[in-house]
Amino acid sequence: MLRTDKVREILSWYEGETPGLKSNLARLLMHGRLAGTGRLVILPVDQGYEHGPARSFAPNPAAYDPHYLYELAIDAGVSGYAAPLGLLEQGADTFAGEVPLILKLNSGNSLFSGNDQALTGTIEDAMRLGCVGVGFTIYPGADRSYEMLEELREISLQAKSRGLMTVVWSYPRGGNITKDGETGLDVIAYAAHMAALMGATIIKVKLPSDHFDLDAAKSTYEKYPVESADPVKRVQHVMQSAFNGKRVVVFSGGGHKNTEELLDEVRSIRDGGGNGSIIGRNSFQRSKQEAIALLKEIMEIYA
Amino acid sequence: MLRTDKVREILSWYEGETPGLKSNLARLLMHGRLAGTGRLVILPVDQGYEHGPARSFAPNPAAYDPHYLYELAIDAGVSGYAAPLGLLEQGADTFAGEVPLILKLNSGNSLFSGNDQALTGTIEDAMRLGCVGVGFTIYPGADRSYEMLEELREISLQAKSRGLMTVVWSYPRGGNITKDGETGLDVIAYAAHMAALMGATIIKVKLPSDHFDLDAAKSTYEKYPVESADPVKRVQHVMQSAFNGKRVVVFSGGGHKNTEELLDEVRSIRDGGGNGSIIGRNSFQRSKQEAIALLKEIMEIYA
Amino acid sequence: MLRTDKVREILSWYEGETPGLKSNLARLLMHGRLAGTGRLVILPVDQGYEHGPARSFAPNPAAYDPHYLYELAIDAGVSGYAAPLGLLEQGADTFAGEVPLILKLNSGNSLFSGNDQALTGTIEDAMRLGCVGVGFTIYPGADRSYEMLEELREISLQAKSRGLMTVVWSYPRGGNITKDGETGLDVIAYAAHMAALMGATIIKVKLPSDHFDLDAAKSTYEKYPVESADPVKRVQHVMQSAFNGKRVVVFSGGGHKNTEELLDEVRSIRDGGGNGSIIGRNSFQRSKQEAIALLKEIMEIYA
Amino acid sequence: MLRTDKVREILSWYEGETPGLKSNLARLLMHGRLAGTGRLVILPVDQGYEHGPARSFAPNPAAYDPHYLYELAIDAGVSGYAAPLGLLEQGADTFAGEVPLILKLNSGNSLFSGNDQALTGTIEDAMRLGCVGVGFTIYPGADRSYEMLEELREISLQAKSRGLMTVVWSYPRGGNITKDGETGLDVIAYAAHMAALMGATIIKVKLPSDHFDLDAAKSTYEKYPVESADPVKRVQHVMQSAFNGKRVVVFSGGGHKNTEELLDEVRSIRDGGGNGSIIGRNSFQRSKQEAIALLKEIMEIYA
Amino acid sequence: MLRTDKVREILSWYEGETPGLKSNLARLLMHGRLAGTGRLVILPVDQGYEHGPARSFAPNPAAYDPHYLYELAIDAGVSGYAAPLGLLEQGADTFAGEVPLILKLNSGNSLFSGNDQALTGTIEDAMRLGCVGVGFTIYPGADRSYEMLEELREISLQAKSRGLMTVVWSYPRGGNITKDGETGLDVIAYAAHMAALMGATIIKVKLPSDHFDLDAAKSTYEKYPVESADPVKRVQHVMQSAFNGKRVVVFSGGGHKNTEELLDEVRSIRDGGGNGSIIGRNSFQRSKQEAIALLKEIMEIYA
Repeated sequence: MLRTDKVREILSWYEGETPGLKSNLARLLMHGRLAGTGRLVILPVDQGYEHGPARSFAPNPAAYDPHYLYELAIDAGVSGYAAPLGLLEQGADTFAGEVPLILKLNSGNSLFSGNDQALTGTIEDAMRLGCVGVGFTIYPGADRSYEMLEELREISLQAKSRGLMTVVWSYPRGGNITKDGETGLDVIAYAAHMAALMGATIIKVKLPSDHFDLDAAKSTYEKYPVESADPVKRVQHVMQSAFNGKRVVVFSGGGHKNTEELLDEVRSIRDGGGNGSIIGRNSFQRSKQEAIALLKEIMEIYA
Repeated sequence: MLRTDKVREILSWYEGETPGLKSNLARLLMHGRLAGTGRLVILPVDQGYEHGPARSFAPNPAAYDPHYLYELAIDAGVSGYAAPLGLLEQGADTFAGEVPLILKLNSGNSLFSGNDQALTGTIEDAMRLGCVGVGFTIYPGADRSYEMLEELREISLQAKSRGLMTVVWSYPRGGNITKDGETGLDVIAYAAHMAALMGATIIKVKLPSDHFDLDAAKSTYEKYPVESADPVKRVQHVMQSAFNGKRVVVFSGGGHKNTEELLDEVRSIRDGGGNGSIIGRNSFQRSKQEAIALLKEIMEIYA
Repeated sequence: MLRTDKVREILSWYEGETPGLKSNLARLLMHGRLAGTGRLVILPVDQGYEHGPARSFAPNPAAYDPHYLYELAIDAGVSGYAAPLGLLEQGADTFAGEVPLILKLNSGNSLFSGNDQALTGTIEDAMRLGCVGVGFTIYPGADRSYEMLEELREISLQAKSRGLMTVVWSYPRGGNITKDGETGLDVIAYAAHMAALMGATIIKVKLPSDHFDLDAAKSTYEKYPVESADPVKRVQHVMQSAFNGKRVVVFSGGGHKNTEELLDEVRSIRDGGGNGSIIGRNSFQRSKQEAIALLKEIMEIYA
Repeated sequence: MLRTDKVREILSWYEGETPGLKSNLARLLMHGRLAGTGRLVILPVDQGYEHGPARSFAPNPAAYDPHYLYELAIDAGVSGYAAPLGLLEQGADTFAGEVPLILKLNSGNSLFSGNDQALTGTIEDAMRLGCVGVGFTIYPGADRSYEMLEELREISLQAKSRGLMTVVWSYPRGGNITKDGETGLDVIAYAAHMAALMGATIIKVKLPSDHFDLDAAKSTYEKYPVESADPVKRVQHVMQSAFNGKRVVVFSGGGHKNTEELLDEVRSIRDGGGNGSIIGRNSFQRSKQEAIALLKEIMEIYA
Repeated sequence: MLRTDKVREILSWYEGETPGLKSNLARLLMHGRLAGTGRLVILPVDQGYEHGPARSFAPNPAAYDPHYLYELAIDAGVSGYAAPLGLLEQGADTFAGEVPLILKLNSGNSLFSGNDQALTGTIEDAMRLGCVGVGFTIYPGADRSYEMLEELREISLQAKSRGLMTVVWSYPRGGNITKDGETGLDVIAYAAHMAALMGATIIKVKLPSDHFDLDAAKSTYEKYPVESADPVKRVQHVMQSAFNGKRVVVFSGGGHKNTEELLDEVRSIRDGGGNGSIIGRNSFQRSKQEAIALLKEIMEIYA
C-alpha cells in the first residue's frame, strides 16, 4: 500500500527530520486497521512496571505472557505496541516485523513514591529490537522535571541521529500544579506545547478536563475564551498548542466510567482533530475477544 | 552586498575567534533591513516555553503555527530569529537560508518555580538546522548560577569549535540581588561584563533602570558617578562594561507602557551606543501587519 | 553432553538475546548435578562483604580461604558460583573452567547503614575472569532505588553486548514497603516482574510469605485470590509474574528453622515451577562433608 | 637572550615535567624586565569578574578596554598577564607573542555568595590563545574544597599533557579557618604546601600575617618557633613549606595602606626568598603612567 | 638476585592478575633490606597533606625538601616509598629506579573536617613517574564510603589494566563504628576483608586493639573466640580475614608510646604472620641517622 495523501501531509510537517525518522513514522501511520488515515491507536503495556503484575494482569491472566500482548496488538490491528525492555525482548524474534514497536525508555513503580521515573532502557536496545521509536515520560512541574527534560534532550539527540521517533508522554504534576490541574485544560495545552518544543515526534497527553489551573494563565483564558465546556473544543485547543495541529498527538485517560463514555471520548478526540488514542488497561484486562471487539469499535470511529 | 566598514570594524573586535564564527556573525549583521549598519533587531520566540502557549499566542492565534513565525521574521526583515528546538525544526526546510537562525539551548517553564533553566537543545541540533549561533540564558546570582556558567563554558567551547556564535541572555536574579536590582544599572553592567568575560559573541541584557542595588558597588558609583537619570548614559555605561563597547549588546524589556515609550527606549539604546533590540511579544502578539509596521519603525530608528 | 530438550526450551524464551548470551546460559544449565534439568543450585558467597568475615566464616574457618569455596562448588556439583571480585580472582586460574562463575558487581556492608550498595566490580573484570554472567542487587522501594535501576540498565547493556548473563537480586525494601512486606507475596511478585522487565536473564528473589503488603494491591488480590496459604501456589504466582514462567527464577531465604524445613521449601519451589535455589550460609558454614551432603539432598529434590 | 643560571636552576626543580612545560616556564622567567632573575611580577585582571566592572575600572576608565590591559602589561615589562577568557581573547591576535599569557580557568562573582568558583574557561581555550599556562583558584577549607581539588587534579593532568604550566591561587577559607586565619602564617604555609603537593608549577598565596590559626598546629609552632614577628621570616617559612623553596611562589595582598608599605612588602618577599608579586588593582586602577612607574619600582626591588 | 621461593609463593596467590602487575609486586618484594623475605617496610609521606607542613616536618626541617625523603627511603633500604603527586615528581628523575614508588591518589587535609578524601593524583601520573603501584584510602562506614569504594573500583580497573598494584589504606570510621571501634579487632578484620574483596594487591590497616565494636558480630566472637588479649592472635585473625593470609597486609599505628613498644608491635606483626609495617612519622621526624638506625632495627626483626 502506498502512502496516502494524508500520511504524506503529516510527514511534510516533520521537515527538520531525516528520511530515516520519517520512514519510521510512515511505518507506524501505514500499519494496521487505521493505516493511511492519519489516525493511530497504540497498545501500551507499562502498567506492570507502574502498578505491579497482579494489578495489571490478574483480571486476564493470559496477559502475564509477553507473547499474548504481541498477539493482541497484531490480531487487533493496532498501529503500534509500546512497552518496557523485557516485554519487547520476549517476542521480538517470534513476531519480528509484524507490528511497529516503541521501546519505553523510562519507568516508575509504585513501591516508591515520588514524581520521577528511572531510565530502564537504551537507544541501543531499541535499535537491536527493530523499534520504530522510543517512548519517554516527562513530568513538567515536578522537582526533577528539569533533569527529565535534559534526559529527554539527550535521548532525543541519540534517537534522531539513528532515525528513531520520540514518543513523549507529557504528564504535568507537582510544582505549581494542583491535583485537579494535572488534567486542567491550560496545563495539558502547556504540556503538549512543551513536548512539541522539545522536538517530540508524537505527543501523548491525558484528555483534558474543563478545569483551568494556573493563576498566571487565567486572565488570558478570560480574555480569549476557548469554550472549554465542549470536549471537542478542548481537544482543538490542545491540538492548536501542538504547533497548530502540525504534530501527531494521541490521548489517554479521560475519566470515562464505562465503555460508552470511552467511545464518546474517542469521538471528541476525532472531532477535535486529535490523532488517536493509547488504549492500555481497557484492552489487555479484557478477554482477547472482548479487547479486539472494543479496539475495532474505537478504530472504526477513527477510520 | 559587500560587508560595510561598520561590519568590518565589529568583526575586528572578535580577534580570538575563527573565520567560521566571524562568517556567521557577518551573516547576521548583513541580513535584513539593518544589514550593514552594525545594528540588529532579533525576533525571539521563547515565550511559549516560558509562559505556555495561550499566554503567548492567544492574542494572535496565527502565531500558534511555527511557519507564521518564520514568515514574520522574513517579511519584517529582522536580522535573525531565535527559538527553541521544535519551533526551528518546523520550518527549517521550507525557509532554509531565508533568515539567520539562533537555536535557544536552554529554557525555563512556569509549571515549575526556581531560578534555573533546563538544557533543551544541543550544538548538534544547531548544526543540523543551519543556525548561525546558539542562545543560552544565565542567571548570575541564582543558586545554580555557577552550574549555569559551567554549562555555558562547555557549550561555548563546542559552539566556537564549530564556528557558531554564542548569544548570552545574561539575567541576574537571586543571590545578593533584590527584585528591583534585577534591572539595576550596576547589576546590568555587571551582567554584561560577565557575559563578555565568558566569551559571548552577542550579549543580551535588560534595559537598565536608574536603580543601584549592590552595597559593595555604591561607594564606587558615588565616587565615579554615571549620570544614571539619563537613559542614554545608562546604556553607555552598559556598553562601557562590555569591553568598552567592543562587544555586540542587544537589549530587551525596559518597562515601557505603550508603543511611544518603546520607541523612546529604542532611541536611548541607539544614542547610548547599543547594538539593537530583541522584540518578542511586541511583535508576534500583534497582527502580522501591525507587527511589521512596528518593527519597521524600530528599525528605521536604528538605521 | 548435548543440550536437553528442557534446556532448549528455556533458551527459546530468551529470543531477544545474542547467541553469545544464550551460550553462557546453556553453560550454566548444562553444568553440575542438575545439568540438563532446567533447575539450578547456585553457591553465593557475598556474606563476607555483607556481614564481615567472622560472622561468615568463623563457624567453618576453612572457608576463609577462597580456594576452599571454589572446591566446595566444584565438589558439590552445583550449577554455578557467585561472589565479589576478590574471591573470584583468588582461584580464577587454578580452577579455570571447572565451574561457571558469576561476578557480583555491587555489594553492601554492615559498617554502614542504608538501603544501597556500592559498585565493586566491572564488566571488564567479569570478562577477564571468564565469567558466564554478572550479579547485581536492586532494592526496589529504597530511596536510591531509581539510581540502582539505572546502574542495572547500564550494566545490563554492557553485559549483553559481551554475551554475559545478568543475574538480578531483586530485594524490595524501604519506600512503601513494611518490614514484613519485604517478603510479602505481592511485593515479591512485583520484584520478580520488575527484574524481568529490566531484561534480567536470571531473577533471584526471596521465598515469599503469606503476607500481602501494598494497600493498592489488596483489592486486586481479594478479587482474584491466589490461595496464598499454600507455599506451592505462592511460588506459582511469582513464576507467573516472571513472564508466565518464561524467565529463570531462583529463590533464597524462606525462614526455615532447620534442615527439614529447608528441604520442604525446596520441594515447594520445585512444585511451584521455580528453577532452583541459591544456598549460601547453609553450605559454607557447615563442614565440607556436611555441606556436600546437604547440597546433594537439595539437588536430588530438584533432579 | 640565553637562559641564565638562575633560570636553569629553577627549571631543574621541575624534574617530573615535560620539556614542553619547562619551555613555557622558561618563557615566563625570561620575559620582561625581570627576565633571567628568577623573579616575577604578574599582572592579573580577574577583578572585573570578582567585583564587577565599575569597582574594577571606574577609577581608570581606560582599563574598560581589553587592549589597554595588554598594553599595560607589555609597556610595563611585567613577566606575564593573567585573565579570564573574554579579556585574553580580545587582544590575542593584536598582541600575539608580546607577553606570556595565563588563562584563569575558574572565577567567582559577587552577585552570589559562597566559597566556590565556577569553571569559566578550558585547556582548549588556553591552547588556542597561545598561553604559557592556566590559572586555577582553590579554597582549602571550604565546603566544596575537595571538589575544587579534584577539578584542579583533572585540569592539571590535561594541562601538563599539553605542556601548559599550572598557576594555583591557593586561598584557604571556611572550614576550620577563622576570618583572620585566612592570612594566618600556619594556614598560608599549609596552603602553599598543599598546592605544591597538587603539582602546581607556580603557587600564588597571600602575604601572611603574624597570626596562627589552627589549634592542632599551635603546639608545633611553640616547640619549633619561626620568629613570625619578622615579615621576612614569615616569607621564609612559606617558601620552606613549598618544597624547601624549590617551587616558584608569588604573593599578593599583604594589607599595605599605601605605596611605601607595598614596597616594604615587596622587599620582605625578596629577602624571604619569594619569587615575586602579583599586582592587580595597584596597577590597572592608576593611570598608565603611574602604573608603569610603580611596576618599575617594584621590579627594581626584585631585580 | 633471583626471586626467592617465598616471593614466588606470594606471587602465586595473585592468580587473577597480569604478569605486568606481578612484576611490579615482585619489584617491591625484591627491593631493599627485606628483599626476598616476603616482608615489607614502606615509607609513607602523606602527613604534609593530612596535617600541614610544620606539624610534619618542623621536628626535622631537612624533610621539607622532597629530595631528602627520597634519600631517606634509599639509604635506609626500605621496600618502597609512598607519597602524593608533588613529592614524587620532585625527585622522580634524580632518583629514577632507585626505590619502588607508590603514588597516593587521594588525600585529606585538616583545614576541612569530614570523613572523606579528595582525588589528588591519577593513574596517568603514576605511569609517567614510573611507579609500581598506586595508593588509595577508603573509610568504610563513613557517609561517603560507598562513593569511595566506587572510586577505588574505577581506579583499580585502570591500574590493573596497566600492570600497577593497588595499595589500599582501609580505615573504618563513622557509620556504625564508635571512636574506639576504629581500631577494634572485629572492625579491622572486616576492613582487611573488604579490601581483599575489592581486589587490593596490598592491604594497609591499623594494628588492632583488644576491643570489639559491632553488636551484630559479638555473638559470633563469643561463640568462636580469638584469644584477642594476645596481640599476636589479633594479627593472626586479621591475616585470616585477608583470604586466610593469602594477601599482603601491612600495619601502621598501634598506640605505642616509645620505641621499645613500637618494636614490640613489630614483633607481634611478624609472629602473627603480618607482612610488615608502614613507618612514617617515626622515621622522617627523626634525624636521618636516627631514622636509619630505627628502620634497620625494625627490618632486622622482620628479616
